[in-house]
Amino acid sequence: MRTFEQYYEDLKKMKHNIWIGEEIVGRDDPRIRGGMNIIKETFDHVDEEEYKDLCTATSHLTGKRINRFCHIHHSVDDLLKKQQMTRVLSHRVGGCIQRCMGIDAINALSVITYEVDQALGTDFYKRFEVYLKYFQENDLVASCAQTDTKGDRLKRPHEQEDPDQYLRVIETKEDGIVVRGCKICITNTAYADELVAVPTRFMGPKDNDYAVAFALPSDWDRVKLLVRPAYFRQSKYGLEAPGLRLGDVETMIIFDDVFVPNERVFLNGNADPRQTPYAGFLALMFAHYHRHSYTGCKPAVSEVIASAAALVAEYNGIEKTSHVRDKLSHLIGTAELVNAAGIASAYRAEKAPSGTYIPDEILTNAGRRLAGEEIYNEYKILADLSGGIVAALPFEGSFFAKDVGELAMKYLKRNPRVDPVNIYRCFRGIENMLVADLAGVMQVAGLHGGGSPQMETITMMARYDIEKLKDIAKYLFGIRKKLHRYDRPPVTPRKMLEKFRKVMELKK
Amino acid sequence: MRTFEQYYEDLKKMKHNIWIGEEIVGRDDPRIRGGMNIIKETFDHVDEEEYKDLCTATSHLTGKRINRFCHIHHSVDDLLKKQQMTRVLSHRVGGCIQRCMGIDAINALSVITYEVDQALGTDFYKRFEVYLKYFQENDLVASCAQTDTKGDRLKRPHEQEDPDQYLRVIETKEDGIVVRGCKICITNTAYADELVAVPTRFMGPKDNDYAVAFALPSDWDRVKLLVRPAYFRQSKYGLEAPGLRLGDVETMIIFDDVFVPNERVFLNGNADPRQTPYAGFLALMFAHYHRHSYTGCKPAVSEVIASAAALVAEYNGIEKTSHVRDKLSHLIGTAELVNAAGIASAYRAEKAPSGTYIPDEILTNAGRRLAGEEIYNEYKILADLSGGIVAALPFEGSFFAKDVGELAMKYLKRNPRVDPVNIYRCFRGIENMLVADLAGVMQVAGLHGGGSPQMETITMMARYDIEKLKDIAKYLFGIRKKLHRYDRPPVTPRKMLEKFRKVMELKK
Amino acid sequence: MRTFEQYYEDLKKMKHNIWIGEEIVGRDDPRIRGGMNIIKETFDHVDEEEYKDLCTATSHLTGKRINRFCHIHHSVDDLLKKQQMTRVLSHRVGGCIQRCMGIDAINALSVITYEVDQALGTDFYKRFEVYLKYFQENDLVASCAQTDTKGDRLKRPHEQEDPDQYLRVIETKEDGIVVRGCKICITNTAYADELVAVPTRFMGPKDNDYAVAFALPSDWDRVKLLVRPAYFRQSKYGLEAPGLRLGDVETMIIFDDVFVPNERVFLNGNADPRQTPYAGFLALMFAHYHRHSYTGCKPAVSEVIASAAALVAEYNGIEKTSHVRDKLSHLIGTAELVNAAGIASAYRAEKAPSGTYIPDEILTNAGRRLAGEEIYNEYKILADLSGGIVAALPFEGSFFAKDVGELAMKYLKRNPRVDPVNIYRCFRGIENMLVADLAGVMQVAGLHGGGSPQMETITMMARYDIEKLKDIAKYLFGIRKKLHRYDRPPVTPRKMLEKFRKVMELKK
Amino acid sequence: MRTFEQYYEDLKKMKHNIWIGEEIVGRDDPRIRGGMNIIKETFDHVDEEEYKDLCTATSHLTGKRINRFCHIHHSVDDLLKKQQMTRVLSHRVGGCIQRCMGIDAINALSVITYEVDQALGTDFYKRFEVYLKYFQENDLVASCAQTDTKGDRLKRPHEQEDPDQYLRVIETKEDGIVVRGCKICITNTAYADELVAVPTRFMGPKDNDYAVAFALPSDWDRVKLLVRPAYFRQSKYGLEAPGLRLGDVETMIIFDDVFVPNERVFLNGNADPRQTPYAGFLALMFAHYHRHSYTGCKPAVSEVIASAAALVAEYNGIEKTSHVRDKLSHLIGTAELVNAAGIASAYRAEKAPSGTYIPDEILTNAGRRLAGEEIYNEYKILADLSGGIVAALPFEGSFFAKDVGELAMKYLKRNPRVDPVNIYRCFRGIENMLVADLAGVMQVAGLHGGGSPQMETITMMARYDIEKLKDIAKYLFGIRKKLHRYDRPPVTPRKMLEKFRKVMELKK
Repeated sequence: MRTFEQYYEDLKKMKHNIWIGEEIVGRDDPRIRGGMNIIKETFDHVDEEEYKDLCTATSHLTGKRINRFCHIHHSVDDLLKKQQMTRVLSHRVGGCIQRCMGIDAINALSVITYEVDQALGTDFYKRFEVYLKYFQENDLVASCAQTDTKGDRLKRPHEQEDPDQYLRVIETKEDGIVVRGCKICITNTAYADELVAVPTRFMGPKDNDYAVAFALPSDWDRVKLLVRPAYFRQSKYGLEAPGLRLGDVETMIIFDDVFVPNERVFLNGNADPRQTPYAGFLALMFAHYHRHSYTGCKPAVSEVIASAAALVAEYNGIEKTSHVRDKLSHLIGTAELVNAAGIASAYRAEKAPSGTYIPDEILTNAGRRLAGEEIYNEYKILADLSGGIVAALPFEGSFFAKDVGELAMKYLKRNPRVDPVNIYRCFRGIENMLVADLAGVMQVAGLHGGGSPQMETITMMARYDIEKLKDIAKYLFGIRKKLHRYDRPPVTPRKMLEKFRKVMELKK
Repeated sequence: MRTFEQYYEDLKKMKHNIWIGEEIVGRDDPRIRGGMNIIKETFDHVDEEEYKDLCTATSHLTGKRINRFCHIHHSVDDLLKKQQMTRVLSHRVGGCIQRCMGIDAINALSVITYEVDQALGTDFYKRFEVYLKYFQENDLVASCAQTDTKGDRLKRPHEQEDPDQYLRVIETKEDGIVVRGCKICITNTAYADELVAVPTRFMGPKDNDYAVAFALPSDWDRVKLLVRPAYFRQSKYGLEAPGLRLGDVETMIIFDDVFVPNERVFLNGNADPRQTPYAGFLALMFAHYHRHSYTGCKPAVSEVIASAAALVAEYNGIEKTSHVRDKLSHLIGTAELVNAAGIASAYRAEKAPSGTYIPDEILTNAGRRLAGEEIYNEYKILADLSGGIVAALPFEGSFFAKDVGELAMKYLKRNPRVDPVNIYRCFRGIENMLVADLAGVMQVAGLHGGGSPQMETITMMARYDIEKLKDIAKYLFGIRKKLHRYDRPPVTPRKMLEKFRKVMELKK
Repeated sequence: MRTFEQYYEDLKKMKHNIWIGEEIVGRDDPRIRGGMNIIKETFDHVDEEEYKDLCTATSHLTGKRINRFCHIHHSVDDLLKKQQMTRVLSHRVGGCIQRCMGIDAINALSVITYEVDQALGTDFYKRFEVYLKYFQENDLVASCAQTDTKGDRLKRPHEQEDPDQYLRVIETKEDGIVVRGCKICITNTAYADELVAVPTRFMGPKDNDYAVAFALPSDWDRVKLLVRPAYFRQSKYGLEAPGLRLGDVETMIIFDDVFVPNERVFLNGNADPRQTPYAGFLALMFAHYHRHSYTGCKPAVSEVIASAAALVAEYNGIEKTSHVRDKLSHLIGTAELVNAAGIASAYRAEKAPSGTYIPDEILTNAGRRLAGEEIYNEYKILADLSGGIVAALPFEGSFFAKDVGELAMKYLKRNPRVDPVNIYRCFRGIENMLVADLAGVMQVAGLHGGGSPQMETITMMARYDIEKLKDIAKYLFGIRKKLHRYDRPPVTPRKMLEKFRKVMELKK
Repeated sequence: MRTFEQYYEDLKKMKHNIWIGEEIVGRDDPRIRGGMNIIKETFDHVDEEEYKDLCTATSHLTGKRINRFCHIHHSVDDLLKKQQMTRVLSHRVGGCIQRCMGIDAINALSVITYEVDQALGTDFYKRFEVYLKYFQENDLVASCAQTDTKGDRLKRPHEQEDPDQYLRVIETKEDGIVVRGCKICITNTAYADELVAVPTRFMGPKDNDYAVAFALPSDWDRVKLLVRPAYFRQSKYGLEAPGLRLGDVETMIIFDDVFVPNERVFLNGNADPRQTPYAGFLALMFAHYHRHSYTGCKPAVSEVIASAAALVAEYNGIEKTSHVRDKLSHLIGTAELVNAAGIASAYRAEKAPSGTYIPDEILTNAGRRLAGEEIYNEYKILADLSGGIVAALPFEGSFFAKDVGELAMKYLKRNPRVDPVNIYRCFRGIENMLVADLAGVMQVAGLHGGGSPQMETITMMARYDIEKLKDIAKYLFGIRKKLHRYDRPPVTPRKMLEKFRKVMELKK
């Protein structure tokens, strides 16, 4: 396993293909350092007693101990540990741990490449295993590029005026493919070793060119990263804090006619239209693993918010009031419910033919959805308990300025048992959570990341067997005679594959 | 195990101590039959292939196969099965299965009697085992009488103007105790074999007389049951339905100076004040098991509502519209989340010294609370998708009346593929769920049964370690240096006992 | 103006065309008396000092003082007074005052008949004035029959398999028309003097037969009323209460080929297809006046609930707790907001060519919608503060029964300053609001009456000028140069008429 | 009336008493320019035809036409126009127009100074009139400093460990007073001509020193402004937008032993304890006027959000979907309801003895509260319809950079009828609303500005006559015989004065 320092050295060697505004910068630009500091946590604790059972796993390929973020889930326990690792590391970074994109991408690929091979006699799974071995041995950080620009949302990929609005294969060569298009809203690409591209949706019979998946180093030739970094003002007066060092970088990845060698191609409907239905399966499978990861990180987000809310309530001296207790309890309850959904989902996992475990879809989506629905309300609660001062806090310098610094600090005093410097730290910390540029990014990410509530609803309703559910009412109302035990069977995206296959049949 | 018929025969033999209005009636009064028909489901399926693994268990006392409602949970699996049994049986009765009161009461007693014995050298657990054996061998149905009338809610039991506002021991005799008081809002007592009385709250040092628990046959001398039955209009025209036969009976139980023999007494602070703190422990433990049962029945309630909503949406021809999908999905999501909370809670259970398993409190309460918070909204969704007709449906006779019956039926037609008789059954069924007297009872029970959301919030906040949670924000904000892995340890009511013991110490 | 007694005498003379189940009954059947007792309030206070300015008005036809429920709004003040009359009378009956249907129907007819005449040279308005004069002079109570059975909801009237699923003209004769169909979910028809039938929706070019409006005595030949009465258990022990005497009767009105004489016909697309577009206008106009009435009665409903909640909180001794204050305040706030919407809507009214005032549509719908969205939550709050006892209260007789009556009453004591008999009255009153059959009817009516929230959303969005609204963002974002003052102009249903006329043109 | 340029010239002459971090800056610092650009709108339209009736008024002192922001409300129409002016100007600045603080402060002072004089024979009102004349003639912009730092929130001012945690008079001299303390969360002080200080809460008998109100130029000697400016990245590539030029500056105002001359002192409990109860009256009266102003600006905020949401929905091509219509309609509905509350509140205004009109408190608070409760949800809706891109949009430069600029722009295309540059403008505009630092400030301000929902609840419940409301339930339940017409009488803060006077009496 690498150390953070080794990871950073590797990044620094990469080609400069990052644009911040009109500037082209390297991986050592301080504006993207905040994101790296989040990834740092995924390296730093692998050998610590209290973290190592969560943060490492044994590779099923090599038997070696590896970073769990490079691991394929081979049991319910793997799923539970991935979820819990995501949660406890997210506490350390006050939110999204970012490296989940890699583990979710490789797990999705492990399932789908195997399925394709079984059905079509291809050798994607073998390719994937080679890639995975390389991935694990080098302890790589991956970004997963899923969301296409989509152009006109009412049209399918092949119907678009501009055919590049979904990433597509423009040529299949002997030794690889050439792809063109753009992926947006991609977290962490600027400091990931690798990017894995997967389709964003179901592809129909005429969308063959768009049924493509592959992996590339993130500084690969003609890959262009246009980034939006978000970070905090750092302390100049000795009031550093771990939270201040964190940040986020969102990326628009332009694939400007990029060549991908065969050994890194994992799906290609352009070469073989029979592969096309697997695009949707892969799209959903990545989304599904990612949503399951959210049942780890979103509870942590709620807990971080609850933690800050409880602290500021204490500092404001209102901790014991009943409305504060109610609000804290609501935050905690949301964390627990979302987490429980992920746990129950893991316990109801299905083992795919590849050996990879797939959690239950209804539960995973119900959990992720609740988190998304609640996110703005959670920020509201934190704002409510903090008071307006978090949006009106003078900058740090004022607290150290001649003539006014001491007075400014004096007037921060609240709970007399708390040092005003800590009150300052607390207000500044919450300012960063609620008001700073990065705060806004976190809110939007909390809503849309991994799919917005609307998407989870669609997924749930696409797979839930409503007809079966109706039997309960039919029985009670006297419309049907017998009611069989209704346990709601486990549901995973593999059902979808059958459906897609049928759709393909019909379209022929 | 008994059959329903045997159970009914046993009931009919009981003394007439039930008041409906001013009438005194026996267990064969048709107005309470609806409730018995619910209990019937707990007897009817124990030998059916698809139910028996859930509905029966092996007694740890006798090794015999018994009805699970008489079983003590000795593993995580027992807790999961109890939850799932509750869920699938609740589907069959469109809501509360009612017999959970017994299993929750005996499990709570198994834990507390053991604790008391360990601490004080009493022999309650032995008594309890004798009682339990009798209970299991006779396959008994129990009601659990917890809620006292409480008088002035701002005063503790011993401070009340009228000392009888909480059930109390007015005399400890050699062979037993005499109790006086009244328990209210008790479901099913009118058709239960036994009633188990437990305290409703924490009892302080001066509340010794109120720290009492015992079991009695529900027709015991000087026990008076004032009931409020709720039931549906039955069909006179051949349109019977299982749902129509169900009902509920709520009871006000008056203990008019009732003698309880020693072998049925399980706690008595009047005799020994050292037992007093266990009253609160027992109160909470019963509530806790009961709330865990709600993570089984409440998802079923949501599913029954979703089932009816989906059916009526189909019949109304609006099933495919996006707002209907959203609403159904919300109902399903709530069911899944509440259920997941109970599952995760079971997986995080603690084994009490008695060997009984106790689920996690935070999760159980978070799940129960969500159900309570949502219940009225769920009925709203059903009303929304049904349309106003469910509150304006002519009585059954009109559909069979001369001159108008056929016309009335003609005008029920909606979805042309559905027989108007089934549309009638559907609207009538939903009328019963939404508008009938029993509908109101179900709403209130969905809110308050097992403790209202307000109570779950209090329980959660009393036990959740908020100080530990604050460490996350303190670390991120730079107020403390290190953050230990924060997994949120399992929480069960046994923590409370320590707290109560301390409170008792301080009061001395 | 009539007295209640005169009204009742008039009703008793009517033909027996009411079915309760399979029975045919007269207007003196006790099961429908509850509804009449509500109407009674509209007669009883017209001469009382504190009510007469609200409850009476001066006829613009005769200059005589009339019951306001028979009045055409000729000013903003008329609209405000109608709203406030509705509110204060609704307090007296704990909810829907029911007679608003008449005033809303006649106001809608006054506008539309005038419009039709202006456009097509017909003489509907003259007919209407004659009818109105008769209506006012006889102080009539009217029901308005709008909602058709609608059959397959995805099909328009003329597309239905069964053409009778919307009320239609099957023949236009020289002296009148013959109509067939059925209206459902109609409140109060069983004890109204008159019924006014109006269309339920926009009618397209092929729906001419369905574009029909007329008025009839409610016992007219071949009019058949299938009713669902809802009422309370009356006191047998001297604990009467005004609330107990109230009730509701919902009606399915079958028009079994009914002849309507010309002088009572107000729209007939069957005779003249040019009248067809006015059907939608009339449908909307009645709905609009009715929704404006809801800005009077719904605040009253919230206030009645808040009143009961505040009272039971006092009796339960929890009035001062912060969560109770929050909840009461929420109820009051909803009442005020819905009321304010109606007030502001009245102040922004438009004067129609007929002289009738039409309130603003956006505000009226926003107000009505909030009420509908909140109704189940309001019942939840009341249930929350009441406690489970309201669903578990023994019937009145038990409190007077030998052996147990006194004990039962003793155990109702709560707040020591309150007589247990009043506590009983309070719990019984809330039981009736929350649990009784009529409670369910009120919930469904609160959601769907006058159009469910979904309908208000549709209406709002159909008329709101979203393009104009977008100018704000376009200006701020630099997409357009100038921003004109955006006041949001008053919107009334007359805009719709233009739209419908255009639709009709296009269809030709 | 001044022009913006004159205002700006006046500001530039002011002393440098503004701290940004540790720097001391003048009013020409570009970081505070954004706020001034908001104030600019209050000057720019006074002579424009479409704005002048709203934006100007006739002074009751001089008879001259003045800026309405300097006017005392002398009629219902004044209140309505102030509300509408606030709304339409808020559209122009995408939110808070900021100058309302001045008009709200002077109106509150006009009422209270008059009351004090009437009761105590002082001459505050005369002083105030002199000041007001100066204020009107010079067309001044004022900030209102209300919120104290409050120290330990569980203690009253005089109980604080540090007595300076509420602004107080430390000395009353012959020619004026010396004040010490700090006001926080004050918008606009950095570019206001004047600041008006008013108490933040009710003051008890021992809090005399804290019962103080006065006005000062905002660069007055020993007044120190520690500011937190928030502003947007400006365009470097010609894509300017009005919205980009706006900003906000929140201020912590330190009164470092500041002398206030008598003619600018409007309340002083230190000199005369009989004035102390008026502190609470003034606190509430300013809050009240300010909340009424929020019924103008908050609807505008909802409309701006709805406008942006509708625009981005169009650009995203999803405008016609039903969930989008529902969400837009919800935003519009909130705007209308909050606005209606202010309108109805104005129509129910009370005329104070000073001649100033005071709107109804229950309605004003109900309106303001709804806005506060909804604010985070409104941002959620905007984020929902915008999609994740608004948090992941590359900086402007990337769209103009060599090699990638054109590609970046190509990949912004969505709705094919919309120029990608406008799509960029739209996404950037929404990024600024949702994600930028200023976005966070607006969210917190939307919740807390003018008092958070919790405060409105407290105010409503303090003044609403709950006992009277209970009469409805008492009547319906049979507990009292008669129900008087319940109109809910108008409520203004003057009731509070009576209450405070009584409290003061009792404390003596």
